[in-house]
Amino acid sequence: MYVTSKEESQILNEVNAGTPMGDFLRRYWWPVGFSADLKDKATYVKIMGEGLVLFRDLKGGVNLIDALCPHRRANLCLGMVGPEGIRCKYHGWLMNGEGDCLDVPGEPKDSTFKHSVKVTAYPIQELGGLIFTYMGPQPAPLLPNYDFLVGDGDCYLTIQGFQDCHWLQCVENGLDPVHPSFTHGGAWPDIANTEPDLGFEETEQGLVYKAFRNTGDKDNQNYREHHLLMPGVSCGGSGGRYLSGEQSGTPVSAARWTVPIDETHSVLFRARYKPGDNPAHYEGDPFTKRWKPKPEPFIEPWKEYRNQDASPTLGYEVPPLHFIEDGMVIDSIGPVADRENENLSPVVDEGIIMLRKMYLREIKRMQAGEDPKGIIRDSKKNQIIHITAYERWVSEDERKELEKTGA
Amino acid sequence: MYVTSKEESQILNEVNAGTPMGDFLRRYWWPVGFSADLKDKATYVKIMGEGLVLFRDLKGGVNLIDALCPHRRANLCLGMVGPEGIRCKYHGWLMNGEGDCLDVPGEPKDSTFKHSVKVTAYPIQELGGLIFTYMGPQPAPLLPNYDFLVGDGDCYLTIQGFQDCHWLQCVENGLDPVHPSFTHGGAWPDIANTEPDLGFEETEQGLVYKAFRNTGDKDNQNYREHHLLMPGVSCGGSGGRYLSGEQSGTPVSAARWTVPIDETHSVLFRARYKPGDNPAHYEGDPFTKRWKPKPEPFIEPWKEYRNQDASPTLGYEVPPLHFIEDGMVIDSIGPVADRENENLSPVVDEGIIMLRKMYLREIKRMQAGEDPKGIIRDSKKNQIIHITAYERWVSEDERKELEKTGA
Amino acid sequence: MYVTSKEESQILNEVNAGTPMGDFLRRYWWPVGFSADLKDKATYVKIMGEGLVLFRDLKGGVNLIDALCPHRRANLCLGMVGPEGIRCKYHGWLMNGEGDCLDVPGEPKDSTFKHSVKVTAYPIQELGGLIFTYMGPQPAPLLPNYDFLVGDGDCYLTIQGFQDCHWLQCVENGLDPVHPSFTHGGAWPDIANTEPDLGFEETEQGLVYKAFRNTGDKDNQNYREHHLLMPGVSCGGSGGRYLSGEQSGTPVSAARWTVPIDETHSVLFRARYKPGDNPAHYEGDPFTKRWKPKPEPFIEPWKEYRNQDASPTLGYEVPPLHFIEDGMVIDSIGPVADRENENLSPVVDEGIIMLRKMYLREIKRMQAGEDPKGIIRDSKKNQIIHITAYERWVSEDERKELEKTGA
Repeated sequence: MYVTSKEESQILNEVNAGTPMGDFLRRYWWPVGFSADLKDKATYVKIMGEGLVLFRDLKGGVNLIDALCPHRRANLCLGMVGPEGIRCKYHGWLMNGEGDCLDVPGEPKDSTFKHSVKVTAYPIQELGGLIFTYMGPQPAPLLPNYDFLVGDGDCYLTIQGFQDCHWLQCVENGLDPVHPSFTHGGAWPDIANTEPDLGFEETEQGLVYKAFRNTGDKDNQNYREHHLLMPGVSCGGSGGRYLSGEQSGTPVSAARWTVPIDETHSVLFRARYKPGDNPAHYEGDPFTKRWKPKPEPFIEPWKEYRNQDASPTLGYEVPPLHFIEDGMVIDSIGPVADRENENLSPVVDEGIIMLRKMYLREIKRMQAGEDPKGIIRDSKKNQIIHITAYERWVSEDERKELEKTGA
Repeated sequence: MYVTSKEESQILNEVNAGTPMGDFLRRYWWPVGFSADLKDKATYVKIMGEGLVLFRDLKGGVNLIDALCPHRRANLCLGMVGPEGIRCKYHGWLMNGEGDCLDVPGEPKDSTFKHSVKVTAYPIQELGGLIFTYMGPQPAPLLPNYDFLVGDGDCYLTIQGFQDCHWLQCVENGLDPVHPSFTHGGAWPDIANTEPDLGFEETEQGLVYKAFRNTGDKDNQNYREHHLLMPGVSCGGSGGRYLSGEQSGTPVSAARWTVPIDETHSVLFRARYKPGDNPAHYEGDPFTKRWKPKPEPFIEPWKEYRNQDASPTLGYEVPPLHFIEDGMVIDSIGPVADRENENLSPVVDEGIIMLRKMYLREIKRMQAGEDPKGIIRDSKKNQIIHITAYERWVSEDERKELEKTGA
Repeated sequence: MYVTSKEESQILNEVNAGTPMGDFLRRYWWPVGFSADLKDKATYVKIMGEGLVLFRDLKGGVNLIDALCPHRRANLCLGMVGPEGIRCKYHGWLMNGEGDCLDVPGEPKDSTFKHSVKVTAYPIQELGGLIFTYMGPQPAPLLPNYDFLVGDGDCYLTIQGFQDCHWLQCVENGLDPVHPSFTHGGAWPDIANTEPDLGFEETEQGLVYKAFRNTGDKDNQNYREHHLLMPGVSCGGSGGRYLSGEQSGTPVSAARWTVPIDETHSVLFRARYKPGDNPAHYEGDPFTKRWKPKPEPFIEPWKEYRNQDASPTLGYEVPPLHFIEDGMVIDSIGPVADRENENLSPVVDEGIIMLRKMYLREIKRMQAGEDPKGIIRDSKKNQIIHITAYERWVSEDERKELEKTGA
């Protein structure tokens, strides 16, 4: 039976620069914010252990630099944004998006002191409403033109939630075709308790699972195809469940970036994509089913008695919303999964096993000087990248076709 | 002067399996819940550092197994209880009360994978409305038939409270005959500031103190007899204070189990026992005087100024309820008492000193292969165990009699 | 460029007894409370890592002793104050202000046990409404008779705030002449974004800065003179901003004691002093502009999205009150400044650099057996100590005069 060893687990857990996994993760572009929300004030973000300040200067450019002022280490997120950069709220030092210091108030006019000051600054690209950064060595690869970001149609962006756990627990949740039957039996009762037929394959961008579920109606089987795009984008079809009207044309999909805040906290960015040739429409607000905070702390010994009620109702309720269902279950594992004490099935957990081995393999490729999986440097390969992730109800004939073609 | 050494203190502090004290504590039965409250949902408990899920299967059996699913370590307390066991909310693995895995959804029907999966499961017994477990080596001793659990009469069960400190601080509070004069001068003004005459004795089950207080009326002296039943049951008489009407026959008593959650957190289970031949009755709800949460954090430097009031009223109020009085005072010691810097009086702290020495002695007996104090394996000795713990107001003659007979 | 080394930073960070800096800080008197607030109940304080109980006995004397009872370590702040001392809420042990144990209830009347019990007790002096203690070796130096405590006029005492950071960050904020232009541009728009001309000098008591700001009106320049009185009293003029009417005579000033609670928490005591010959008066309540708690935690990654709003307003607001402005900026540095990664300007940060070197130098003097800077033992030098700290609007001629005389 496959067990992730303690040593492998330690490698997978690291996110900081200078570690194998931390350096590997820095070879990819990561989302850090939403273009529409970033206006004239700075905000604080943290990615892979690095506290950063994100701001749009008054010329319109988006910038991401060290959060702590190089002078006396006050947090620049309290500062004032101007056309050239951001002024620290403490002593007014002016830092620009390249990490240069442009002004030190109180210094003599001819002082060259400011030229000795420099902080980390990361490149930014905006795409499809998201703000991406690249924190690795230059030259940076291309930012992938995934169809859910650049394709014709509607894209709804939101934060899916915050997790008090290692980012990999969230990514693995995506590559896990059985859990919807149990974790989401509340939100999606039509597939509750069903056992899927599974297939896993490595792709150019990462991994895919394909799962068929007989939901009682043989001619109306549930088909889910879910991709992992390296290193941490989960792309599936649950966004289609909130549509009404006839769906046709290209299926809807939902992509989720699990961004490591640090080793035990994560933030999930989500894009729901409804292609232009799909005539269905969302019921009400497409964000209606979005994330709500989990109660904190939600699992505690004898928690039910802590509210002073002599005879409380014991047990835990998981609200039937799939973001909360996932969030509560994944956090219940703890800050970092005790992988050495897992029991992974070679059948149902094949995707998890492939994924962990793939990370470890791709780290070695990176260390050998190669680009790891999913890195794109040829713009011809980046016109638009179609990801066929979705959930559909298919007939027996369609199923046979899908199994043949691999969708 | 007796001082508990650093080494002895370290032994006393441990609660985890594999440590001398942790193994010693596991030789006894411990309460983990109330029979009446445990219905059709699982709940999370934690005892001596072990996170466990407690559930009543739909056949009626009570079960206690590892809280984290052996598959991917999600907490089973979010799962669904059925007749055979509990299904994990993550992937539907079905675990029974023996710690066996009965079903792995998605595995082929003829797969033997599930037979390789096994988790810790602890035996359960229900008695007098409480659910007890035994976490030590087999064969388990008998669960003691204390009169306050099996005797004729009324037994009121409740959680007394939660403490943010080592369990021994709570147990020692029971064996401490002086503190009621000061800690409970608010709740019980009739004995406020009185100095008792004390006696301590080792018993078959543990220790007892006997304290006489002249409360101003020589013919109406206050007599308290309080037992420590190994390893952590405190049994006294304060439950009688909330009765009205004439008390006669067997006196009322109150037993408190201090259950170690971990090294710095404890939960107190409490049984108030009114024997059937005692005609008095509780004023209103017998739980009226029960635990209320302590304000958190309740002691903090310059706390009174933190609410912005320019001239606050300084100081701390301890509400006159004995659960809160005990709870606040015991927590004020800190997570673990700095025993090396105590000053124990050979007179008033004789019980504390005897108790600590007794634990250390009984650990050695256990290590030598013997049963430690209070372990019962002969069912003849377990018909019913009468504990003469109570508080009474006695005449001078009764006092002389009590001193002679040892109650 | 001057950089505080890791080793120097470690010395500066320590506050506990037995460390060079901790011992150095204990050579001075520190405020621990307000005379008017301390009535008939004890309160808990913590200074330089030592938890203490402060109480006024019923004879009127103020006392400061170990917070934890020498018996079983319950916190004496829950105890009862009497004429002789404080009785522990746990077992009624009576401790007096010298740290002696006067009574052990339950002990035989002729017992000498209590004489073996002794705890730390610190001397107290009350001056100008503040309660001061001295925690160093005897003989204690004189408590300085600063004019803002003993002078003719009005003194308004308050807690300025609590900081979740090392005390030195607050002290350095005082010796920092540039930050008002940026940190307090909200509270004091007349000096917003101005660049001062600076001077720094060592004084008998510590350090002083003198800063002139051309505020647009050449004949109405802003002059600030701010003192650091060893080891942690910041004395400036911002208290004058809340006065109305003509100011003349001796300028108003404000003194702030930054008291280390431990290495990462501080409490700020503040005295606003309006000399008797100054006819102006405070607008409304002189405490109106006092401290309000900072939101906790106030800087957090993607904080704005944690409230579930799909399109939140990004960024941080700093309310325009100078206590909050300082408090938020200083805490944003983190619990302890990463001094090795600062960039200190030899011009604007000259005071900071002088201050750190002065501490390190004075520690060495103390270790050589000398009294460090600011220690007064000659009562003739302690009749009254005038500190010329203030903020004024001066003409060009006055400026020239001030620069000549050094105010």
